[in-house]
Amino acid sequence: MTDTPLVGIVMGSDSDLTVMRQAAETLASFGVPYEITVASAHRSPERAANYASSAINRGLKVIIAGAGWAAHLAGVMAGGTTLPVIGVPISSSPLKGLDALLATVQMPPGVPVATVGLDAANNAAILAVQILALFDPQLAQALLAYKENMAKKVQEKAQNLKI
Amino acid sequence: MTDTPLVGIVMGSDSDLTVMRQAAETLASFGVPYEITVASAHRSPERAANYASSAINRGLKVIIAGAGWAAHLAGVMAGGTTLPVIGVPISSSPLKGLDALLATVQMPPGVPVATVGLDAANNAAILAVQILALFDPQLAQALLAYKENMAKKVQEKAQNLKI
Amino acid sequence: MTDTPLVGIVMGSDSDLTVMRQAAETLASFGVPYEITVASAHRSPERAANYASSAINRGLKVIIAGAGWAAHLAGVMAGGTTLPVIGVPISSSPLKGLDALLATVQMPPGVPVATVGLDAANNAAILAVQILALFDPQLAQALLAYKENMAKKVQEKAQNLKI
Amino acid sequence: MTDTPLVGIVMGSDSDLTVMRQAAETLASFGVPYEITVASAHRSPERAANYASSAINRGLKVIIAGAGWAAHLAGVMAGGTTLPVIGVPISSSPLKGLDALLATVQMPPGVPVATVGLDAANNAAILAVQILALFDPQLAQALLAYKENMAKKVQEKAQNLKI
Amino acid sequence: MTDTPLVGIVMGSDSDLTVMRQAAETLASFGVPYEITVASAHRSPERAANYASSAINRGLKVIIAGAGWAAHLAGVMAGGTTLPVIGVPISSSPLKGLDALLATVQMPPGVPVATVGLDAANNAAILAVQILALFDPQLAQALLAYKENMAKKVQEKAQNLKI
Amino acid sequence: MTDTPLVGIVMGSDSDLTVMRQAAETLASFGVPYEITVASAHRSPERAANYASSAINRGLKVIIAGAGWAAHLAGVMAGGTTLPVIGVPISSSPLKGLDALLATVQMPPGVPVATVGLDAANNAAILAVQILALFDPQLAQALLAYKENMAKKVQEKAQNLKI
Amino acid sequence: MTDTPLVGIVMGSDSDLTVMRQAAETLASFGVPYEITVASAHRSPERAANYASSAINRGLKVIIAGAGWAAHLAGVMAGGTTLPVIGVPISSSPLKGLDALLATVQMPPGVPVATVGLDAANNAAILAVQILALFDPQLAQALLAYKENMAKKVQEKAQNLKI
Amino acid sequence: MTDTPLVGIVMGSDSDLTVMRQAAETLASFGVPYEITVASAHRSPERAANYASSAINRGLKVIIAGAGWAAHLAGVMAGGTTLPVIGVPISSSPLKGLDALLATVQMPPGVPVATVGLDAANNAAILAVQILALFDPQLAQALLAYKENMAKKVQEKAQNLKI
Repeated sequence: MTDTPLVGIVMGSDSDLTVMRQAAETLASFGVPYEITVASAHRSPERAANYASSAINRGLKVIIAGAGWAAHLAGVMAGGTTLPVIGVPISSSPLKGLDALLATVQMPPGVPVATVGLDAANNAAILAVQILALFDPQLAQALLAYKENMAKKVQEKAQNLKI
Repeated sequence: MTDTPLVGIVMGSDSDLTVMRQAAETLASFGVPYEITVASAHRSPERAANYASSAINRGLKVIIAGAGWAAHLAGVMAGGTTLPVIGVPISSSPLKGLDALLATVQMPPGVPVATVGLDAANNAAILAVQILALFDPQLAQALLAYKENMAKKVQEKAQNLKI
Repeated sequence: MTDTPLVGIVMGSDSDLTVMRQAAETLASFGVPYEITVASAHRSPERAANYASSAINRGLKVIIAGAGWAAHLAGVMAGGTTLPVIGVPISSSPLKGLDALLATVQMPPGVPVATVGLDAANNAAILAVQILALFDPQLAQALLAYKENMAKKVQEKAQNLKI
Repeated sequence: MTDTPLVGIVMGSDSDLTVMRQAAETLASFGVPYEITVASAHRSPERAANYASSAINRGLKVIIAGAGWAAHLAGVMAGGTTLPVIGVPISSSPLKGLDALLATVQMPPGVPVATVGLDAANNAAILAVQILALFDPQLAQALLAYKENMAKKVQEKAQNLKI
Repeated sequence: MTDTPLVGIVMGSDSDLTVMRQAAETLASFGVPYEITVASAHRSPERAANYASSAINRGLKVIIAGAGWAAHLAGVMAGGTTLPVIGVPISSSPLKGLDALLATVQMPPGVPVATVGLDAANNAAILAVQILALFDPQLAQALLAYKENMAKKVQEKAQNLKI
Repeated sequence: MTDTPLVGIVMGSDSDLTVMRQAAETLASFGVPYEITVASAHRSPERAANYASSAINRGLKVIIAGAGWAAHLAGVMAGGTTLPVIGVPISSSPLKGLDALLATVQMPPGVPVATVGLDAANNAAILAVQILALFDPQLAQALLAYKENMAKKVQEKAQNLKI
Repeated sequence: MTDTPLVGIVMGSDSDLTVMRQAAETLASFGVPYEITVASAHRSPERAANYASSAINRGLKVIIAGAGWAAHLAGVMAGGTTLPVIGVPISSSPLKGLDALLATVQMPPGVPVATVGLDAANNAAILAVQILALFDPQLAQALLAYKENMAKKVQEKAQNLKI
Repeated sequence: MTDTPLVGIVMGSDSDLTVMRQAAETLASFGVPYEITVASAHRSPERAANYASSAINRGLKVIIAGAGWAAHLAGVMAGGTTLPVIGVPISSSPLKGLDALLATVQMPPGVPVATVGLDAANNAAILAVQILALFDPQLAQALLAYKENMAKKVQEKAQNLKI
C-alpha cells in the first residue's frame, strides 16, 4: 500500500498474526490503507506507548489492537491517544479468551476500548471501516454493498441447504 | 438541544435510564447533539428495526445501545445500519451482566458491535465523541483537554491521599 | 415432505447444519412435516423478521431456532411471532456455548424462548412434538412409545454392560 | 378457578413462591385455569413422580416447574410425562442461579425441558399460553393483543422519558 | 464377584463407562464386592427410583452415581434412599462438566450427595472404601497401606525425576 | 455432650461458625456426639495436621471440614487420615464460593473429599449420620423418620400454599 | 515515616484506598517504610510509567499495585521495572473481581505479576515483608513471630468457640 | 549445579514436569542454583510439610510450587515457611485451570501465595530471579539485559512480520 495508513493494526505477539491477519485482509478488500506491527504492552511498553502517542500525527484515524491472556494492549493504546481504539480479545489462553475479553472490555471511566468478539479481527476491520465511512461517501457505499451481499449470501445458503 | 442529533442513545427499557443517562450527560458536556429513546429488540422489534434503518437518513453518525440480560438491542442496531454501533451491556440480571456482556460482544462476522464495559454508558459516549472528533478539530481539541484533565485529576487525588 | 410444514427449523448459518440436522431427522421420524432454512438475525435481519412474522399465516405451529455466539436468532423469532419458539444454543464459540446459552435463554419479560441444552437439536424436536401432540392423539401415542423405548434401551444397555 | 386446570405450576419449596406467583398471575390474566403446588424432587420424590405421571390423566396440558440450586424438579417432570415441561431456574443460591440454570437446561437426549430465564416465571406462563393458543383462537387473539400492548408500552415509555 | 455387593455403581449412560469403570476396578482392588449398572434419571426414572428404594434391602451400603450434563442421577439416588450416595460429575458436555458438578453438588437441605471431583470415579471408590472401613478393621488396614503406598510412590517419583 | 465424639467438626476460622453451627445442631438432633473446633490449614497447619492424624485414635468416625476462599482445610484432613472427610465450601469470598467449591471438590486421585453444597453444613451432618447409620440400626431408623418427615412437610406446605 | 520507602503502594483510583489502606497498615506494623500514591494505567499512563521506571533509583525494592475492573496497573508496573511487582485485584466491578483477577494474573512470558487474592492488600504487604526479610534478619524474626502468633490466635479462637 | 540451591521447585505430580521444567530452565539460564522435586499436598502431606519447614535452614530463599486441580501445594508451602512462595496453577483439569487458579490465589489473611498465570512456570522463575536480584547486583544487571532483550525481540518480530 502506498497511501498513508488510516488504520493501525497492532498485536501483542507475532503468534497473534493468524487471527489479526483477517483485519488486514478485510481492510484491504475495502481499499483502506493500513499498517500492521507488533508491540507488547508488557515486553515493549515504550514501543507500545510511542505507537499510541504518535498515532494522530502519523495520520492514523483508528487503531485495532489484538492480544490474548491479560490483554492490556488495547488499553495501553486507549490510554495513549484520543483516537478510537478497537480491541480484539484473542482466545489463546487455557481459559479460552475469557481473560482476554474481560481485560479488554472492562476499561475505567474516560478510556473506552471498542471491544469486538473473541478472535473477531474481521469485525474489528468492519468497525474501522464503518467509522471511516462516516465521512467518506464512497466507503459508505461499499459498506452498504457489503451488507446487502451478506444478506444475499444467507439467502443463497438457504437455497443450497442440503439435508 | 436544537441541533440535529449526531448520536442516538437507545435503551431496551426505561429502567436502564439510570445507567444510560450518563451517556447523555457526557455527550452534552462535549456539546454533541443527541437524542435518547426506548426501543426493545424483543417487545418492539419493528420500532427497533426502524430506528436502525432510518438512522443514517435522520443524520445520526453513531448509535449507542444499552440493554441487560440477553442484550440483543445493540445487535439489532448493528444488523439494521452501517453506522458504528456502540453496545453498553447492563448488569441488571442475577448473573451481574455476564449474560449481557456476552450477548452484546460475541457478534457474528460482518456485523460488529463496539462493546464497552458493564454499565459503562459514560465510556460509550466518550467513544462516540472520539469517532466524531476524527473529522471535527474542535471536538478533537476538547478530547485532548478531557484526557489531560483526567491525568491532572489523578495527580490531585494522589496529593490529597489521606491515610 | 408434501404436507404443510408444522415446524420451522431456522439456523443462523449453514455451518450450524451439523447440529440442526438432528432436529429435522427427529421430526421426520415422528412424521411431523417441517421446513428448514437459514436466516441470520444480524446478516439478514429482514429475512429473519419476515420468517417470524409470516410463520402463523404459513401454517407453522412451532419454530426451532439454532445459533451460536451472541445467539439472537431465537429471540428475533420470539419477538416477531406469538408462536412458541424453541431455542438451540450452539457451542461453536471459544467459550463453548456459554455465550449462546445466555443469549438465548435470558429473554426479557413477555417474550420467552423455550431453551434446550447446548447443541440439543434433537431435544428441540422432541419438545416440538410434545407441543403438537397435545391435540394430536396419534402423536401423543407415538411419544409414549418413544418414552417407553428409551427406558427399554437403558435396560438393554445395563444388561450388555461389559466390564 | 372452577375450570379443570390446564397448566400445573409446581415448585421445589414454598420459598420459591415469591418468584412462581408471577406465573399464576399471568395465567390468570389470560383466563387460563391452573393449579399450583409444592413438590420437591429430592425431599418428596414420590410426590413429584406422581405429579408428573398423573398429569395427562388429570387434564393438564403443560407443566411449569420452578426450582433453585441443583434444580432437578423440571427434569423429574420431563422424565415422568410426555407433556411439555417448562423449567424456571431460580437464582436463590450463592452462585445466583448459574447452578439452577445449568441443572434445568442441560437435559439428556429424549427428555427436553423448555427452559426460560432466571426467575422468569412470568415468561414461563406466556410460553404456556403460546402453546395452548395453538389450538385456541381466542387465546391466540389475546396473545396478539398482549404483544401489541407491549410494543405500545415501549412507545409510551419512550415518550415519557425524562432526562 | 460372588459376595453380596456392598457398593452399587450406577451411571446415566453406557457412554459413561470409560469413566465409571475406574470405580469398579478400585473397589475390586480392595476386595469390596460391587454391582454396576445403567439407570437414567430422565430416560428410565422408574428404574432409577427402584434402584434407590431397593438398595438397603438388597444389602448395599453405599451408592456411587456418575452422570454428565444436568447430572441428576446422584440426586435421584439420594432422594430415594438413606444410604450415603457418592456423586461423580462427568465432564462430557461442552461446558466441561461445570454443569454436571453444580447439578450434583448443590443439593437442597436434607438430601446430601457426597460429591467428588470431575470424572473422579476412582476417588468415589476410595470414599466408599473409607466408609465401609469404619467398621471393617481389615479394610481399614488396607486403606492405611494404600495411603502409605501413595506417599512412597511420590517419593519414588521425586527420586526418578529427570530434568 | 459426654459421649466420645464420633464426628469432628472443624472450620478454618471462627467467622465460619454461623454456617458450621448448623452441622452441630443437626448432629445433636440425631443424638450423635460430636466435637467442634477451629483449625486453619494455612495459619495453623500443624494443628490441622495433628487434628487429622489423631482423629482415628480419638475415636472419630467422620470429619466435617468447612472453609471459604482457597478452601484447603478439608483436603488437609483427607490427606492426614483414612476416615471419610466431608467438605463444606463456604460462600464468604467475593466470588461467592465458586473458589471454595472448586478448591474443596477437585481433589487428586487417592484422596477424596465428600463435598456438599455451598454453606450446606446441615447436609454435611446428614451425610455423616447416613454413614454412621450403616452400622447403627437405631440411627438408620431415625434417618428414615427424618426422610418421611421431609416428605410430609412438603405436603403440608403444598396444602398451606397461599396465593 | 522518615526512612526511604522500600515498598511503593500504588492504586488505580482513590476509591481503592479502602482496600489498599490495609497494605500500608501492615507494612507500618512491621516497621517497613513505604510510600502510597495514585496512578492510573489508563487515565495517567505517563505517571504510571514514570512511577515504574523510577522505582529502582528511588530505592524501592517492591511495588504493590491494586486495581479493579480491567486491572492493568500491576502489569504496567511489571512492564516498567525489574523489581518484583505484587498485584492486588480489587472486587469493585459487577463481576466481583473475576475481571480484575484475570487481568492481573494472566501476564505474558517474561513479565510476571505476583498476584494475591481478591482485595488481599494485607497479604500483598506480608508478601513484600517476606521478600525484604530474605536479607534482613530482624524482619525475618518478626515474620516468624507473626506466623506463630497466627497459630496461637487460631488456638485461642478454638478455645473460645461458643455454640 | 554444585552451589547450594536458592530456589526450590516443587510440583504435585511428576506429570506436572512438562510445565515446571520451564522454571528450572529459566533459573539455569540466569545461573541461579535450584533444586526440583515432587511432593503432594494430599498424597504425601508430611513430605510436603517437611519440605516447607526445612526450607530456610537448607538455604532456600524462594519456593516455586506448581499444581493442578484443587491446587493446595503452594498453600501448604506458604503455611509452613516465611519464605516467599510462588504458585503456578496448572491447567490440567477439565475446567482448564480455573480450579487451580482459584485454589492457589485465594489464600486467607496472613499467608500469601505469589500467584502467576496458568502454566506460567517461566514467569515464576523470573519472579524468583527478581526477588533474588534485589540484593545481587549481578543478577539485577542480568534482569535488565533480559528485559531489554525482550523489547528488542518484539521489534525484530515487528520487522519480520510477513502478511
